[in-house]
Amino acid sequence: MSNKIHDLDTPCLLLDRDRLETNLERMKKVATSRSTLLRPHLKTSKSLEVASLALKASGGGATVSTLKEAEVLGRSGAVDLLYAVAISPQKLKRVAGLRAEGIDLKVVVDNVEMAEHLSAFYEQTGQTIPTLIELDLDGHRSGVRPEDSIQLLAIGRELDRYQQLRGVMAHAGESYALSDPADLQHSADNEAKSACAAAQTLCNSGLPCPIVSIGSTPTALMGTSYEGVTELRAGVFMFFDLVQSGVGVCRKDDIALSVLSTVISTNPDASRLVIDAGWMALSRDRGTASQAEDYGYGQVCLPDGIILTDVLVLDAQQEHGIIGVRRGSSACLPKLSIGDQLRILPNHACATAAQHGAYHVINKQAEVEAIWPRFSGW
Amino acid sequence: MSNKIHDLDTPCLLLDRDRLETNLERMKKVATSRSTLLRPHLKTSKSLEVASLALKASGGGATVSTLKEAEVLGRSGAVDLLYAVAISPQKLKRVAGLRAEGIDLKVVVDNVEMAEHLSAFYEQTGQTIPTLIELDLDGHRSGVRPEDSIQLLAIGRELDRYQQLRGVMAHAGESYALSDPADLQHSADNEAKSACAAAQTLCNSGLPCPIVSIGSTPTALMGTSYEGVTELRAGVFMFFDLVQSGVGVCRKDDIALSVLSTVISTNPDASRLVIDAGWMALSRDRGTASQAEDYGYGQVCLPDGIILTDVLVLDAQQEHGIIGVRRGSSACLPKLSIGDQLRILPNHACATAAQHGAYHVINKQAEVEAIWPRFSGW
Repeated sequence: MSNKIHDLDTPCLLLDRDRLETNLERMKKVATSRSTLLRPHLKTSKSLEVASLALKASGGGATVSTLKEAEVLGRSGAVDLLYAVAISPQKLKRVAGLRAEGIDLKVVVDNVEMAEHLSAFYEQTGQTIPTLIELDLDGHRSGVRPEDSIQLLAIGRELDRYQQLRGVMAHAGESYALSDPADLQHSADNEAKSACAAAQTLCNSGLPCPIVSIGSTPTALMGTSYEGVTELRAGVFMFFDLVQSGVGVCRKDDIALSVLSTVISTNPDASRLVIDAGWMALSRDRGTASQAEDYGYGQVCLPDGIILTDVLVLDAQQEHGIIGVRRGSSACLPKLSIGDQLRILPNHACATAAQHGAYHVINKQAEVEAIWPRFSGW
Repeated sequence: MSNKIHDLDTPCLLLDRDRLETNLERMKKVATSRSTLLRPHLKTSKSLEVASLALKASGGGATVSTLKEAEVLGRSGAVDLLYAVAISPQKLKRVAGLRAEGIDLKVVVDNVEMAEHLSAFYEQTGQTIPTLIELDLDGHRSGVRPEDSIQLLAIGRELDRYQQLRGVMAHAGESYALSDPADLQHSADNEAKSACAAAQTLCNSGLPCPIVSIGSTPTALMGTSYEGVTELRAGVFMFFDLVQSGVGVCRKDDIALSVLSTVISTNPDASRLVIDAGWMALSRDRGTASQAEDYGYGQVCLPDGIILTDVLVLDAQQEHGIIGVRRGSSACLPKLSIGDQLRILPNHACATAAQHGAYHVINKQAEVEAIWPRFSGW
């Protein structure tokens, strides 16, 4: 097999291995400096090989967003897993099955009703499922408000009936919408403080709370050490993307993921190029649309990774990406021919990666070293 | 295996077989009434079973958007295929390989440069590749302007050097942004008229143009018979979606595709429900955002398919869908418990289907009859 990206069928997904390893090393140092464990989120990558590197950085723990991830990665050696999406009754059997295989899979709940389902499941099967209480920091999603001690204690007591309570989990989802460093630090502090306050509420009532889990890529990177936090969760930092660059927690040159594409049409007046990467290859994610700099469907780079400033994927159809220059910019489109390649940095690594079945892993010389399959589904 | 959707792991994709067949029958009648062939687009479904029903409706011809579709579907019997995305030089070898297997795969080009590549390929290999000239009706994508007879004839002559010219292809992409019936009819007329005018330009210069291919779901359904058009292309009509309902070419009750999900969190104040279908299951497509009625990330239905008017997926994270009532509506959220199921109608069937590995095919009683795998990639 050729190792030249020039010989790859396009569109396809490239993963820069050096950047991935540098990004992992950076987060590992952050966790060490904050005196917490690292529980990297494997939902962005959905890959055995990336998970293996992430587990090396974490020392063993990881986070998943689907039971499929828990099954595939748990059976490949990731045995300390947190499924960080609120569990429902129907899923308990699969969770218990994985636990019976030796995978220490923990779940989260945010209400008494589900805690009672967990008790009933124990009464029927004799199986305990270690459970964290999900906290809601910003009112945006699921979770218990950390200051709602009545609800917190009601869930905690129900879970403790059969020794299923293991801790609390907080996620500062609102941090993705920030970009000012002071705001990010405030969000990170709030995440840590809220999680620790909720843990204290449980402990004050004699309930156990060994795990205090916080995190998101921005708050993990912008926060500081906080007494009581036991672990940091973060996922997208492994690959980074334009949204994280807009938040301010990475440079564009840290982005490890890109979509390789081929020019299929050139407009005679040179104001537009069409590539064979549309939203099917780039995803429909427009995460930078609400940021200070909107990158359309992605930032255009030359095949060697050199960024073409202000040259963007302005629009996308299913299999067509429309490339042009950012409005108001004096940049020029590169002079390219049909068949020339371009690389696109993604708005959101999780969404773009999900459109592909494999990573073409490249080295510093942009040579293909390996193909790492991705899995998908639930 | 249980045939109850209640027993399915969620999120998962449901396909209503009766609606699919009704939608195919409707388009078949349209093509007959317009005295054209039907060349259904298989890019939405990417499924052998759906393709088989579509080919029955078309009589044999079909359209694809990737070479992967051509390979998978061509090798399963779809031997009259049009690859409707502008070809690039690197892809010619795969095209020729499929043609050597007996699949009559046709390609499209929009410039002399690529037509010359096709000539060079013939000179090197002796293989002709039947080619259509892509027309650009709205300046949005790739294609030659139909009135640009100089460019049209230059491409046509180059393709005719080795008998590779087969016709013209037009796609009224702008029709997806319309909703007024008169505008849609005008767009449909323009598509047909432009394609026929371009064909006439070629014929007047003695060039062959046996295929005059037009279409999109809205223009196929809203257009009328037009002398000279030989075939209609359309794809999303098989499943339909909220965008097409907003365009006005289907009712919500025609939508054959939905995502089955489970309630995982209920807000005590009842203004919000959280389901386990986030954008990973629904896609990031927000196609209705620019229409008169914005459906967020989807229209919420009960498990039996009953539409809950004004109850929408207002926001989505990777594995969380946030359900609430449309702003300004007096509708109420249904009273649901953790573990209850809901179905979500998609904004854009192509994008939502692409997030899943299979269709759970249901009958009128919402019982699961079959599982039809989907393929993906390029």
